[in-house]
Amino acid sequence: MLRVALVQMNSTVGDLAGNARRIAEGMEQARRDGADVVAFPELALTGYPPEDLLFRPRFVTENRRWLDWLAERSRGLTALVGFVDRDGDLYNAAAVLHDGRLAAVYRKMALPNYGVFDEYRYFRPGTSPLVLKLNGTSLGLSICEDIWYPGGPAEAEAVAGGAEVLINLSASPYHVGKVAGRDRMLATRAADYVAALLYVNLVGGQDELVFDGHSRAFDEKGNLAAGAMGFAEDYLLVEVQVERIFQHRLVDPRWRRPALADGPLPLSVVELPPVARPARTTHLLPGERLRGAVVPVASGSAQHPEAGAAPASPADPDPEAAEVYAAITLAIRDYVRKNGFSKVVLGLSGGIDSAVTACLAVDALGAENVVGVSNPSRFSSEHSKEDARSLAEALGITFYILPIEPVFKAYEELLAPVFAGRPFDVAEENLQARIRGTIWMALANKFGWLLLSTSNKSEAAVGYGTLYGDMAGGFAPLKDVSKLMVYRLARYRNRRGPGQPIPESTLAKPPSAELRPDQKDTDSLPPYELLDPILAALVEEDLPPEAVIAMGYPEEEVRRTAQMLFRSEYKRRQTPPGVKVTPRAFGRDRRYPITNRFREISS
Amino acid sequence: MLRVALVQMNSTVGDLAGNARRIAEGMEQARRDGADVVAFPELALTGYPPEDLLFRPRFVTENRRWLDWLAERSRGLTALVGFVDRDGDLYNAAAVLHDGRLAAVYRKMALPNYGVFDEYRYFRPGTSPLVLKLNGTSLGLSICEDIWYPGGPAEAEAVAGGAEVLINLSASPYHVGKVAGRDRMLATRAADYVAALLYVNLVGGQDELVFDGHSRAFDEKGNLAAGAMGFAEDYLLVEVQVERIFQHRLVDPRWRRPALADGPLPLSVVELPPVARPARTTHLLPGERLRGAVVPVASGSAQHPEAGAAPASPADPDPEAAEVYAAITLAIRDYVRKNGFSKVVLGLSGGIDSAVTACLAVDALGAENVVGVSNPSRFSSEHSKEDARSLAEALGITFYILPIEPVFKAYEELLAPVFAGRPFDVAEENLQARIRGTIWMALANKFGWLLLSTSNKSEAAVGYGTLYGDMAGGFAPLKDVSKLMVYRLARYRNRRGPGQPIPESTLAKPPSAELRPDQKDTDSLPPYELLDPILAALVEEDLPPEAVIAMGYPEEEVRRTAQMLFRSEYKRRQTPPGVKVTPRAFGRDRRYPITNRFREISS
Repeated sequence: MLRVALVQMNSTVGDLAGNARRIAEGMEQARRDGADVVAFPELALTGYPPEDLLFRPRFVTENRRWLDWLAERSRGLTALVGFVDRDGDLYNAAAVLHDGRLAAVYRKMALPNYGVFDEYRYFRPGTSPLVLKLNGTSLGLSICEDIWYPGGPAEAEAVAGGAEVLINLSASPYHVGKVAGRDRMLATRAADYVAALLYVNLVGGQDELVFDGHSRAFDEKGNLAAGAMGFAEDYLLVEVQVERIFQHRLVDPRWRRPALADGPLPLSVVELPPVARPARTTHLLPGERLRGAVVPVASGSAQHPEAGAAPASPADPDPEAAEVYAAITLAIRDYVRKNGFSKVVLGLSGGIDSAVTACLAVDALGAENVVGVSNPSRFSSEHSKEDARSLAEALGITFYILPIEPVFKAYEELLAPVFAGRPFDVAEENLQARIRGTIWMALANKFGWLLLSTSNKSEAAVGYGTLYGDMAGGFAPLKDVSKLMVYRLARYRNRRGPGQPIPESTLAKPPSAELRPDQKDTDSLPPYELLDPILAALVEEDLPPEAVIAMGYPEEEVRRTAQMLFRSEYKRRQTPPGVKVTPRAFGRDRRYPITNRFREISS
Repeated sequence: MLRVALVQMNSTVGDLAGNARRIAEGMEQARRDGADVVAFPELALTGYPPEDLLFRPRFVTENRRWLDWLAERSRGLTALVGFVDRDGDLYNAAAVLHDGRLAAVYRKMALPNYGVFDEYRYFRPGTSPLVLKLNGTSLGLSICEDIWYPGGPAEAEAVAGGAEVLINLSASPYHVGKVAGRDRMLATRAADYVAALLYVNLVGGQDELVFDGHSRAFDEKGNLAAGAMGFAEDYLLVEVQVERIFQHRLVDPRWRRPALADGPLPLSVVELPPVARPARTTHLLPGERLRGAVVPVASGSAQHPEAGAAPASPADPDPEAAEVYAAITLAIRDYVRKNGFSKVVLGLSGGIDSAVTACLAVDALGAENVVGVSNPSRFSSEHSKEDARSLAEALGITFYILPIEPVFKAYEELLAPVFAGRPFDVAEENLQARIRGTIWMALANKFGWLLLSTSNKSEAAVGYGTLYGDMAGGFAPLKDVSKLMVYRLARYRNRRGPGQPIPESTLAKPPSAELRPDQKDTDSLPPYELLDPILAALVEEDLPPEAVIAMGYPEEEVRRTAQMLFRSEYKRRQTPPGVKVTPRAFGRDRRYPITNRFREISS
């Protein structure tokens, strides 16, 4: 029998000392719980992704120094710690710290270099699966991407190496829908290899990514034995009945598999000496029943309770919105706090984007850390001003009203000689947005606040927004959120409470930038009910326009949307970071040239 | 004897039809010149780098359709054309178009995935070197990165395959000092393999990169037989005396080399049927003497004369500055024109950055396409206003003076209740810069101009600049230019003429942002004579601070600089694109996290 603790922790990139201390605390808790093995996420020691910090020799050296410090604290158990291994080149690696020393190193074999990942920029791939022999049990190690490939190291470890327990250290960034697909894949791997599969994932926000946690323990039939929370630190303690796995293997037809592929990968086997430990008894959690060889013993983190952590409520009628809301809340909190800010400021227009951004900020940071600013213009409607005020009051945030008319007039007079004879157009519209951006930045600079941009993904996709205006800020919580999802988040937040901060009229009125008289978004764009699914097909599914038209969307709207999408790449290059919550975010996830004459649809 | 034409062309990313037409024109010229072979740069058909356009199936399909169109136009010669090959996956490839058909394909084997490159994101590496047999001559093909590795496909092609002529299709981005190192490497490869080495490089600007041209023909001793211009389209025609190469090989001790490495790579050999062609005679260029087997026949492009192309003048006492100036000029012209703009606008402060940016813009686009705007404030000195005006007059550009005081006052009054009791600080400084940025953007929006940012690399490195203010714009010509290099560019431009547009006082006065009374850059920063070499060591050479201190720079200044560098990553994420001219530019070339607790020097 093997007792394993999974520590789902929130590392901070570059904070080697802080991450090491949290790992040491996790080891301590695991030891108190009588665990044989404690596992931490991929690159838990450095944070993920460290990016070009990996090119700083001192960063790698100090990471190794902290690993040695942790090795000394591993007496009485085996700790699997993600770190950067240097040996002629760099490797994304898992250290096996055993009873006071570094006993072995596993090196990640499958390096992701797609989407948001650039691992070939930094690492050389490992070449050898690793099986640890510990008290009569065999454990196979792998890191993140490794487990996504059928026939990867886990297969060699289980089939050739006989590992009954497979442990994967992961840093898997969130997007909506990912958890279900990942769970399905992990369950399949466990069943395929008739092995317990213990998956420990990173949690927390890092620039444009949020890691969702959702660590898992699957039994050898692919049943979920225990699962950790999403979007918060957590801790799982499970026991693996190794003898049961062997019994199941004897009767599982797939275990005596035919040789389907090439020969097995070269396999390393490391025998770990036994460790003296006190006797323990297994305590089943109430309500759990023994279905396979993996038995949950405890969960929940007494170690690092996070203030304000609000994990997704799966009971909500819109669980996707609940999940996205939780993801963004964590991303805001981590971006603000890990960068040393405490307060944020944002513009409140009375519209839906700023309302949802304000709710997210309050849930992430507390109302006392959020400042809302209303900047009405000659084109602002009464209901907008009213909606902004009632939102701020409902949330209990500091609220300023600073009308832009005198500043707008001053610009108009200054520019009048140059603009003489030209009609009011997009120049004046953008000017108003930039006056607001300038005011918010002045407040941010004066008081040391971080400006949140309220710009959403639909607008950024088609370039319907003002650079240095509403697109300005230090962080853009809705950057990867379509307009329709913004509405879903709003309704979710009002449903969930506390309170119903977003005014009904904000939800009900047609979206408008209010930069000229009676302006509506639909003056310039297809209705969002049409625009958003077209954009999802073009961006998130990378489909060509003809395929989107073949799905039944009106040809004219698809053409228009595709043209706007490709023409506004230059704007997206200058937007603030914001968290990825879809399969394809703007930013490093989608790398289009600005200078680009290719048009999929002739105009 | 083999006659080869190298067409150093300026492709546009995504402009498949336009690039194909230019390739067809190059083939036509080569045919008129009696060439056996004509070679074009890497991915000449799609432009380089196409980035995520490669994920659009139609982009790849159309690239193939245009290749077939070109194949039909290859009657009577052999054309080597960079294109994207699709066969289960994508390959960065060279098509061998021979006498009307696609006769063979070479697939790039070494895929760069460092610095600005992400080729593993898009391509699978090729596995086989390729030798073409043509009229009794053997040609070995390779693509860009391939030739940078000793023992790559060129070695297999020459040593195992007997290729007397090695042709490398390249898209090698410029940075200062690169050409000399590249020439040295190419010369060494030619001598190592006792082969003629013909190198055809892309030229032109693409977003943050500029490709420098400098195509080359080296003989089998590593002597430069012919070279094309830098920073302009060009055309080289050479003859290779294949029999001479064979003679040299017989007496070169390294040809009968010992087997030093693993066995040779798997080699493909394609026999090309002979082509009927008229007889030709060899014409040596005047002044050239026959040193090796490669004989220059003609150079210079009658095909695509580029208006305003001003290649670097190697006769200048500062040839590096001349080269960087030529590189940026080309980058501006291509960014502006390929993106469909004709005019640019920029702020003229009277300082050195805006003066040099204005000169570059005028040389790239013509004075009639450049608009300068002076926005004096209460802190602007008389000499600054005077210097801005005299620069604009000397360059003959449109010039507006729009003082910002009334707008600044309007903001001050609006913010007074919130700012009450707080001293004038960076908030007010940034406010002035953002008023200017807003005015420039209003002009750009109203008239359809592109705003050039005048921000330089030294400022961006330490965060000494205002987001949405002086850092605003569509393109930042000096983004990768240190302050000291800005001065060198200024002196070069005044030396070279026409005229001496940059006022002596702009060159002589201490740099100042003029955002508060008597402000100097040295109030906040080390002097540039110290700052710039420290930054070059930290950024361009990726050295840790302790190494920079060990080089003899004052510890306190190195610490300060390193701290400012890492703290201002967030600002650099929102800056406009600008052209890479150093070994390590900010942007895709240097990928640091914003959220980052790692400090190399404890504070």
